[in-house]
Amino acid sequence: MLVNCIAYQDGKRIADRIAPANIGGYISRPECFVWVALKDPQPGEFSELEKQFELHELAVEDASRGHQRPKIEEYGDSLFAVLHIVEFINDELVVGEVDIFAGPNYVLSVRNRAEKGFTEVRARCEREPELLQLGSGFVLYALMDAVVDRYFPIMDALETELENLEERMFSGGTARANIEDMYALKQKLMVLKHAVGPLLEGVGKLHGGRVPQLCAGTQEYCRDIYDHLMRINQSIDALREMVTTALSVNLSLITVAENETTKRLAACAALVAVPTLVAGVYGMKFEHMPELKWAYGYPLALGIMGVVDAYLFYRFRKAGWL
Amino acid sequence: MLVNCIAYQDGKRIADRIAPANIGGYISRPECFVWVALKDPQPGEFSELEKQFELHELAVEDASRGHQRPKIEEYGDSLFAVLHIVEFINDELVVGEVDIFAGPNYVLSVRNRAEKGFTEVRARCEREPELLQLGSGFVLYALMDAVVDRYFPIMDALETELENLEERMFSGGTARANIEDMYALKQKLMVLKHAVGPLLEGVGKLHGGRVPQLCAGTQEYCRDIYDHLMRINQSIDALREMVTTALSVNLSLITVAENETTKRLAACAALVAVPTLVAGVYGMKFEHMPELKWAYGYPLALGIMGVVDAYLFYRFRKAGWL
Amino acid sequence: MLVNCIAYQDGKRIADRIAPANIGGYISRPECFVWVALKDPQPGEFSELEKQFELHELAVEDASRGHQRPKIEEYGDSLFAVLHIVEFINDELVVGEVDIFAGPNYVLSVRNRAEKGFTEVRARCEREPELLQLGSGFVLYALMDAVVDRYFPIMDALETELENLEERMFSGGTARANIEDMYALKQKLMVLKHAVGPLLEGVGKLHGGRVPQLCAGTQEYCRDIYDHLMRINQSIDALREMVTTALSVNLSLITVAENETTKRLAACAALVAVPTLVAGVYGMKFEHMPELKWAYGYPLALGIMGVVDAYLFYRFRKAGWL
Amino acid sequence: MLVNCIAYQDGKRIADRIAPANIGGYISRPECFVWVALKDPQPGEFSELEKQFELHELAVEDASRGHQRPKIEEYGDSLFAVLHIVEFINDELVVGEVDIFAGPNYVLSVRNRAEKGFTEVRARCEREPELLQLGSGFVLYALMDAVVDRYFPIMDALETELENLEERMFSGGTARANIEDMYALKQKLMVLKHAVGPLLEGVGKLHGGRVPQLCAGTQEYCRDIYDHLMRINQSIDALREMVTTALSVNLSLITVAENETTKRLAACAALVAVPTLVAGVYGMKFEHMPELKWAYGYPLALGIMGVVDAYLFYRFRKAGWL
Amino acid sequence: MLVNCIAYQDGKRIADRIAPANIGGYISRPECFVWVALKDPQPGEFSELEKQFELHELAVEDASRGHQRPKIEEYGDSLFAVLHIVEFINDELVVGEVDIFAGPNYVLSVRNRAEKGFTEVRARCEREPELLQLGSGFVLYALMDAVVDRYFPIMDALETELENLEERMFSGGTARANIEDMYALKQKLMVLKHAVGPLLEGVGKLHGGRVPQLCAGTQEYCRDIYDHLMRINQSIDALREMVTTALSVNLSLITVAENETTKRLAACAALVAVPTLVAGVYGMKFEHMPELKWAYGYPLALGIMGVVDAYLFYRFRKAGWL
Repeated sequence: MLVNCIAYQDGKRIADRIAPANIGGYISRPECFVWVALKDPQPGEFSELEKQFELHELAVEDASRGHQRPKIEEYGDSLFAVLHIVEFINDELVVGEVDIFAGPNYVLSVRNRAEKGFTEVRARCEREPELLQLGSGFVLYALMDAVVDRYFPIMDALETELENLEERMFSGGTARANIEDMYALKQKLMVLKHAVGPLLEGVGKLHGGRVPQLCAGTQEYCRDIYDHLMRINQSIDALREMVTTALSVNLSLITVAENETTKRLAACAALVAVPTLVAGVYGMKFEHMPELKWAYGYPLALGIMGVVDAYLFYRFRKAGWL
Repeated sequence: MLVNCIAYQDGKRIADRIAPANIGGYISRPECFVWVALKDPQPGEFSELEKQFELHELAVEDASRGHQRPKIEEYGDSLFAVLHIVEFINDELVVGEVDIFAGPNYVLSVRNRAEKGFTEVRARCEREPELLQLGSGFVLYALMDAVVDRYFPIMDALETELENLEERMFSGGTARANIEDMYALKQKLMVLKHAVGPLLEGVGKLHGGRVPQLCAGTQEYCRDIYDHLMRINQSIDALREMVTTALSVNLSLITVAENETTKRLAACAALVAVPTLVAGVYGMKFEHMPELKWAYGYPLALGIMGVVDAYLFYRFRKAGWL
Repeated sequence: MLVNCIAYQDGKRIADRIAPANIGGYISRPECFVWVALKDPQPGEFSELEKQFELHELAVEDASRGHQRPKIEEYGDSLFAVLHIVEFINDELVVGEVDIFAGPNYVLSVRNRAEKGFTEVRARCEREPELLQLGSGFVLYALMDAVVDRYFPIMDALETELENLEERMFSGGTARANIEDMYALKQKLMVLKHAVGPLLEGVGKLHGGRVPQLCAGTQEYCRDIYDHLMRINQSIDALREMVTTALSVNLSLITVAENETTKRLAACAALVAVPTLVAGVYGMKFEHMPELKWAYGYPLALGIMGVVDAYLFYRFRKAGWL
Repeated sequence: MLVNCIAYQDGKRIADRIAPANIGGYISRPECFVWVALKDPQPGEFSELEKQFELHELAVEDASRGHQRPKIEEYGDSLFAVLHIVEFINDELVVGEVDIFAGPNYVLSVRNRAEKGFTEVRARCEREPELLQLGSGFVLYALMDAVVDRYFPIMDALETELENLEERMFSGGTARANIEDMYALKQKLMVLKHAVGPLLEGVGKLHGGRVPQLCAGTQEYCRDIYDHLMRINQSIDALREMVTTALSVNLSLITVAENETTKRLAACAALVAVPTLVAGVYGMKFEHMPELKWAYGYPLALGIMGVVDAYLFYRFRKAGWL
Repeated sequence: MLVNCIAYQDGKRIADRIAPANIGGYISRPECFVWVALKDPQPGEFSELEKQFELHELAVEDASRGHQRPKIEEYGDSLFAVLHIVEFINDELVVGEVDIFAGPNYVLSVRNRAEKGFTEVRARCEREPELLQLGSGFVLYALMDAVVDRYFPIMDALETELENLEERMFSGGTARANIEDMYALKQKLMVLKHAVGPLLEGVGKLHGGRVPQLCAGTQEYCRDIYDHLMRINQSIDALREMVTTALSVNLSLITVAENETTKRLAACAALVAVPTLVAGVYGMKFEHMPELKWAYGYPLALGIMGVVDAYLFYRFRKAGWL
């Protein structure tokens, strides 16, 4: 679906809702660039744009197929960027994709399987015409920046999840659910890592050293994105390490709990076994057992059982077994 | 076995089923190249081709011996590539090998221990003569691309396997079988890693920076293969990490299960031990035990046992032990 | 809050408590530089300074937002450094931040969420005018050095914590508390690692090879900071490894303890079960059981129980089970 | 012990069993080189050769002391290589060492603590005079190639060992022996890793980029060795990872087995405890227990015990506990 | 404490026990250099030497403060090296430090917290005047070589420790002591790693590529030290990995032992429980129990108990439970 197709000159809109066939007129002007936004495109929708912008066959193939790993590739003087859009939908991480083709006088963004669009990015760009004047390179930056900024709340949510897990773990919650949640958290971290890791590598080539011509004017902005990605990446790695530690800590806690259960059970067993022994003794059939004839033998036997159990109970309680 | 030997000029077939001895006439023409396909070759079959193409002794030795690790080596202006062909046969990963010798005017592919051939690659190449015109470098690319593309379904199958394992693990399936399958999955991942890892390194040298002359025109295609390999490699690493995590999660779950078993057993033991104690008490032989003379003493005793057990059962059930 | 704003020339104060609006007069003199210290600044406080020093928009944005990862960035001939201030407050690690903007003739430090200030740094600088003469680069060094030096006592505290943990672990303290403390220690190490790791990378670029103009005269000082960071970083890594080892050692110790508990319980069970068997035997109702009629049958039976238990007790004690 | 000392010219022997003192005459001729083989040399045997070949003091020291890590060092225009010879003797890995000094017109190999010699290498070289013509660099290659080729059967043996371990592990063999063997396998892998790892690094410098003069003509051969080492190295790493995995899998299996033992024991205990309860009930001394007077009370009681046990047995068997 | 201060020319002593104040006369002669050795210096002792040798303020600060990490730093044409001296005192690793300042015509070694001095190094140097002629660079090498050589026996002791641990582990020694010793071994390895790791990095810069002027003549000697460090480093890493493996192996062995204990206990329990059941049966009070009236009923019952226990014992023994 074509979301919009707008031409800009000197940082200002000069034409709205351009039909794909008319793009040629705008991109031939050197001062002007066209920003096209597609969403979940149909197979046919691409071909006209492909011809107009002279996109490279391999990049188009990647964009139509989808499910690429994040990357930034140069094709001559144009760039092809793939970014993962990560969204939290019903407590599940859903991974969409945005493919951005950027040349000297066009930007084409193709959004796939993602709920939230980029209208706010266009609005922000148009609010700052002095920056938009930097051309398509700035639009590329703005789009990437928006995608990366959306990783932060995801990251925060995962950090909160770990904190909840830790609390439940140490307060002795149900071990089984905890383990399952830790595993799920690890999986989510892998998803985010897949989005961030390769992108970090790609963005790293857009500042310092040799930089694609398109990003020459926005180097410091790209370094900013890089810096954000580094921060997220580092947090992911730290979180992964903590989840691994939490898993092993959890195993230790389970083993400790097992030990405690064993002790408690043993204490209870003792409380039953010892009176049973006493009863057994007075169940013996010797002819000469003077206690058996005592008038208060029976209550005495019960008393012994009670006293012994009380003593055992006191000892076990003191030792922390009960 | 010689599968085929075809000469191409300007991207079109000019001669079919050429006898090895006649190859010389074709490779001496600068515009022409010969594409030979061998399958599980016999020791003798090689020598004629070796002489015609002036293959390097060490490369030939590697190809005849087989069981090489994947690699791409330069010998003067020709390339020698070894790739693993991974196939799923009866739920087992079977590793074959294709050795590709590529020079300016010849491509020789030697397929070993693999079921599926490369006829579809030849067909695809011949369907795009404008690309086939790029010469033997493009054929090399097409063959490598085909091998790498066949890794994706393997990867998907392994991912599905892990998902099944996870489900069984958390639904409390038979732990022993789970562990065995996790280990087997890990082994399969190692096999795939062996195929992908070294190749990644080799293909990385076919684009960007200094590139062998043969691949000068197909750099962007090689980058595409590289990108696919990166994706598979990353998935393998992620999967390996998840298997390791799953193994340790599984151990935790087993320990939790053990704990639960212990509790259930203890509860059952209590349900038997307490009535045994009661019975023991009334089996004592004191002369003065008034209950023994009551008409309803016996049913009362049985009743006490029943009530105590019912109470214990209720408590254990509430605590989740039963 | 503006802490202070002082102008220096030839290593000596020339003006105190300068109003932000008057800074321009000082920074236009080539021999003079201004050192401004802000603390938890309000949104408005920045704008005047930003204009006077011509700070870069992105750096200002980072500084106002806070919660950056440590870094050192070049913007033209000025530097922007972010450092984490780590403080131990009530046994918790609290992370503050100091953002330093340093240009050829100004240094602006912005301290956020940190208790302890940098007055001692200013005092030290003023005590050594021959070094302060090196200009704003030296002030930058002095500030960074002060922040890094404050990591050492934190590190020492964490090392002591590990030593205490080790002692408790091997002396058989409460396993549950130990595990919780190990996890907490690991978390603190992650916090410190986050402060040190990225900074190490940043400071590494301030000596050897190409160095920002501002630090040309203080290279050897920066190498000194780098060296301190390396030392802390190495200690963190070593500590992390030891915590991981301690966790697994702890699990082993818990399992050993479990084993010992099982043995002790089994021994106790035996001490009860064997007399119960003896009592059961003499509770049988055979008509011909001569012992039952013996005058000393009953004390004999009790004696047997006692002797068997004493023997068992001796055996268990010798085997270390009791 | 001096094994042999032979002079070669144009790839052919020109003098056999040369006395060390006469070597000078041969190494002064530019077209000629001498190949000396020593075995477990005595302290004195070296000095003459050291003088003749002008070996570097440090290299000689290394060779006489032995127990070096594998390495390849340049001393001027000569090379000094240390390789580990790994042999399987009585199921133990025994590590010998060969030190090779190679200069433009001499090769001196010193074999220490190794059973198998290098006569086959000399034979192979003499069979291919056109390669031997390449001079001492080729001999160096041939020796290194022979040592590296001997790593392969060791590697295969270790892989077979792991496969046997896996089989025993999953078929429930004696856990204790399994663990011990896994540890031993890990140790053997470390030995092999020590032989291969550093050598890989050393050989990597003999091809591509700047190469010692001596190896200029044998670069492609050195790359072949490098490739073999890579393959072994990769296999070692894979094997190490699998051993680690096997160890943790084994622990899981042991825990599972423990769980199963506990269940079986509990089932057995139940089969005894329930009849004991029944017996206890009928051992009570109530005056009014009608069953006690029934003619078939006793067989009935036994019958109840039997039926209950049969039912329990059926339940336990169905639940897989017995 | 000043140990000694000697001037050398052409590899020979020319003046002994020079007072610090007279050093100037010697170091002004180009052919001459002074070798000063300090031990646990007092604050004041340094200042005279600092002035004479024009030591850099930061290096002096490091040396006076002590507790540096190992490093080799260039200050102009002089070098500042910090090495850890590791000694085994009462089974504990004690870490001392030697700081070496080396300039074109002086070497100043400052030994801290170490028992063994470097007189043997001086003796060795003076025995080889042709090497000592190389100047202060050779002295620097000789000192570093001596420190590094002292790591080898430490390493050997730790390897022996691991071997003892392995033996005890597999022969079933006391698990608790084993674990404690493994942890202690790991700690010692960390200490050694701290000494070796950073030094390796430092020494690596003293040979190959750009080398400090001072070490230009002793490059091959420095490579020798580097090689030794590599060997130790590799051994440390291998040992660390084995300790980690041993820890996890130990846990498996403990779990196996637990399993065996459980089985033995269960067997013992069965040996008691079954006769108890028999006794319970004959303790029932049915009127019609013919066995009770048999003359040999009682011995028969005892016999049954004995036979059943003997059978059970045989079964358990065969199954390896007892």
